[in-house]
Amino acid sequence: MQIKGISAYVIKRLPRYYRFLGDLSAAGIKRISSGELAKRMGLTASQIRQDLNCFGGFGQQGYGYNTDILREEIGNILGINNTKKIIVIGMGNLGKAITQHVNFNDKGFSLIGLFDEKESLVGNIVRNIPIRNTNQLDEFCKENHPDAAVLCIPKEAVYPIAEHLIRLGVKGFLNFSHYDLALNFEGIAVENIHFGDDLMKLSYKIKNLDK
Amino acid sequence: MQIKGISAYVIKRLPRYYRFLGDLSAAGIKRISSGELAKRMGLTASQIRQDLNCFGGFGQQGYGYNTDILREEIGNILGINNTKKIIVIGMGNLGKAITQHVNFNDKGFSLIGLFDEKESLVGNIVRNIPIRNTNQLDEFCKENHPDAAVLCIPKEAVYPIAEHLIRLGVKGFLNFSHYDLALNFEGIAVENIHFGDDLMKLSYKIKNLDK
Repeated sequence: MQIKGISAYVIKRLPRYYRFLGDLSAAGIKRISSGELAKRMGLTASQIRQDLNCFGGFGQQGYGYNTDILREEIGNILGINNTKKIIVIGMGNLGKAITQHVNFNDKGFSLIGLFDEKESLVGNIVRNIPIRNTNQLDEFCKENHPDAAVLCIPKEAVYPIAEHLIRLGVKGFLNFSHYDLALNFEGIAVENIHFGDDLMKLSYKIKNLDK
Repeated sequence: MQIKGISAYVIKRLPRYYRFLGDLSAAGIKRISSGELAKRMGLTASQIRQDLNCFGGFGQQGYGYNTDILREEIGNILGINNTKKIIVIGMGNLGKAITQHVNFNDKGFSLIGLFDEKESLVGNIVRNIPIRNTNQLDEFCKENHPDAAVLCIPKEAVYPIAEHLIRLGVKGFLNFSHYDLALNFEGIAVENIHFGDDLMKLSYKIKNLDK
C-alpha cells in the first residue's frame, strides 16, 4: 500500500525516527551517522538511508545527520507543525484514559472537545475540558471546526456518528472501535487501534518464540 | 522483517482476517470466495490468496473458503487455541481501561493478575481480580507462571520491571510504554502500542488527503 507514492511501511517508521531523534536531541547529541542511528534503533544503516531517501534524504556524506534538522524535517513531513483540532467521542474508561494519557499537542493536534451521550458524564472535567453531550456536536463543530476525532465508542455506534462528523467537516479518525471506517467512507484519514489484533499478534509471536 | 519465514506484514493481517471471518460466521455465511472476502475487506482477491498461501492455503478452486474452517485455521496459526496467562502491570487510568475494555479470553490469553506499586490502588477489584502490590510479583509468578504481561507503566519504570519479569519466566509483552523493549532484551515477544505514533501517522494522512 502506498500513500502519495511513499510506502505505508516507511511512513509507519517515521514517528519512531521522530521519537528517537527527540531523545538524542534531549541528550545533547547534535550529529549522528546512519550507522550509529541504525544501531540505536535496531535497524540497518542502509534501511535508514533508504527510508530517508524517500523524502530526498537529509544526510551528508562523511558528516551524518544533524539530529535537530532531521527531526524537524520529519516533523514537517508528518505535518506536526500544522496543528489540527481534535475531539474525543466516548468518554467511558477508554476515552477518559486516552484523554489523560496522550500528549496530543506535540503530535500535531490540539484537543478541543470531549463528548459522551451519557448524561451522568456530561459536565465532568477532564484535562480542563468539560464533557459535552453528543447532541451538542452540530453546534460545537459549526463553531470550532474540528479536523479529527478519536472514537472510543462501541462498534455499533460508529457508523451514524462517523457519518455525522464527516458531514460536519471532520476528515481524520483515530479509531479504537472494531468498525472498519475506511471501508465505508471515502476520502478520510483513518488510523485504527485494535488492542485485540495486537494481542493476537503477540500470541503468534509467543507461539513461535522457541521454534 | 520476517518471523519464521513469514512476512511480518502477512502476520499483521491475520487478526483482521480472523475478525472478519468471525463476523461472517456470526451472520450465518458458511462459505465465501476470495473475491467476495476481498471486497468486504477492501483488499484484492490475489492479495488474500497470496496471504493465505503462506500457510498452505485453505481454499478450494470453485468453492472458495469455508468460513468456520478458515477462521479456525487462522486461530491455530495465531496460537489462540493455546491459552497463555497474562498479567497487567500498572493499574492507573490506562491499565484500568485496558483491563476493562479488552477481551483477553478469545484472543489466546487468560488474565490472571493485576499489579501496581501504589498502595492506594492495591486491593481494588477490577474484573473480579484484586490489584496486588508489585512487590508480590515474585511470589505470584513462582506460583502462577504468567507467560505475558501488559505494561502500562512510565517509560523509566520499564527496564527494571521487564528484566525482573523475564527472569521470572515472562516471555511476551504488550507494551504501552515508549520504552523499546525489543532493543534491550533478546528472545522475547513484544507488541508495542504507541498512541503517539498513531497520532503522528494520522497527522500525515490528514496532511496528504487533498493533495
